[in-house]
Amino acid sequence: MPTFIILGHKVRTDDNFSLNDLAGSTGRLDVLLRCVNSAFMLSNDMRKDVEVYLVLLGEPAPPKTIHFKGDELKYLNPDERSTGALVKKALEESVWQEEIETSPGVYVCKKGLEEIVKEPEGRRVYLREDGKDVREISLASDDIFILGGHGDLTSGEEKIIEASGDAIRASLGPKSLHADHCITLVVNELDRL
Amino acid sequence: MPTFIILGHKVRTDDNFSLNDLAGSTGRLDVLLRCVNSAFMLSNDMRKDVEVYLVLLGEPAPPKTIHFKGDELKYLNPDERSTGALVKKALEESVWQEEIETSPGVYVCKKGLEEIVKEPEGRRVYLREDGKDVREISLASDDIFILGGHGDLTSGEEKIIEASGDAIRASLGPKSLHADHCITLVVNELDRL
Repeated sequence: MPTFIILGHKVRTDDNFSLNDLAGSTGRLDVLLRCVNSAFMLSNDMRKDVEVYLVLLGEPAPPKTIHFKGDELKYLNPDERSTGALVKKALEESVWQEEIETSPGVYVCKKGLEEIVKEPEGRRVYLREDGKDVREISLASDDIFILGGHGDLTSGEEKIIEASGDAIRASLGPKSLHADHCITLVVNELDRL
Repeated sequence: MPTFIILGHKVRTDDNFSLNDLAGSTGRLDVLLRCVNSAFMLSNDMRKDVEVYLVLLGEPAPPKTIHFKGDELKYLNPDERSTGALVKKALEESVWQEEIETSPGVYVCKKGLEEIVKEPEGRRVYLREDGKDVREISLASDDIFILGGHGDLTSGEEKIIEASGDAIRASLGPKSLHADHCITLVVNELDRL
C-alpha cells in the first residue's frame, strides 16, 4: 500500500502546545496535520489502504514517530484541530522503540528516519523540485513517498534514504508546493493507475 | 486569471462562531478555509494571480460572499485558524451589494451565486464527478472553477451557472474528493499549461 513518510524537522516532541495555536507553538505541526488530511481524506470516506509516518525531530525529545494506519483509523476528521488532538494524545505517552497505540490506528514510538525508512517494503520516492516529473514515472501502489513537511529534506536525510534501498527523486510540477498539496497530487496519480 | 467560486451551503453568515471549533460551529467553514489555502499557497510564496469567492449560504443572513484577491492579499497564512479569523472579521460588518474591504485583499458583500457568477469573465468550469476528465480538457488561465465546499452543487445552482455563459463540467479523477483537494489538482493543471 502507498506509504508517506513526512519529516517535521522542528516539530515539538512533547505535548506542551496549545490546540489554539497549532501554527505557532508546535514547530509547524499544522503542516503535518494537513498532510494527514491529504493522505487519508476522501469525500465522505477515507483511504484505508494508506499509511503515514510523521517523523518529529524538534525539541525536547527527538526523534519520535507517529504512525497512522488507514485500515485501523477511527476518529480522524479533516480539520487541523481534531487531528492535532490525536497527535497531542500520542505525545503524552512515554515511548520506546516499540510502537504503542494511543487511539485506534494511531501509534507512537521512539524512532527516527533511519529506522522508519527501512520498515515498509517498496521503492523509495523522495520529493524534490529537481526530481523527474511524477507523470513520467511509473508509480506503483506500494511506493513509499518521503518528503519534508516544512522545508526540504537535508542532504544527510537523502543519503539515509538512498542507503535504504531502491530510491528515485520525483517532482510534482513546475512550482514549489506545500507538502500537503504534494500528497494530494501523489494520491491522485495513484488513483489514476 | 483563474478564479474559484466555492459554495458553502450551510456556512454561517455572521461572526457568531468560535475559532476553537471551526469544524463544528460554523456550518463547515473549515472546508472553505482549506480551499483558500489550496488556491493561494505556495511554498514560501503566494499565488498572486488567483481570485477566490466564498459564497456563504447558511443562517442567519444568507447570502454573503467573501472575496479574496491574490494580488492584494496580506496576512494570509496556511493554517485554518488564521484564515478563519480573516473570515470572522469580514462577517462582523453590515454588508450590502457593494464590496467592502475588511482586511487587505479580503472583501465582503451581500451577493449570492446568481450575481457572483456573472462578475468574472471567462469560461465556467464546474466540478462534478461525472464531468470530463480535467486532463482531457484544454484549461485556460482565465477559467472560472465552481464547486461545492461540503456537498455537490444543487441542480438549481448548475442551471444558474449554465445560464450565465459558456460552461462545462470537469472531473478530477476516479475518486470523490474534498473541495480543497480538487483546487490543489486544478492549480497544478494550470501550473503545467
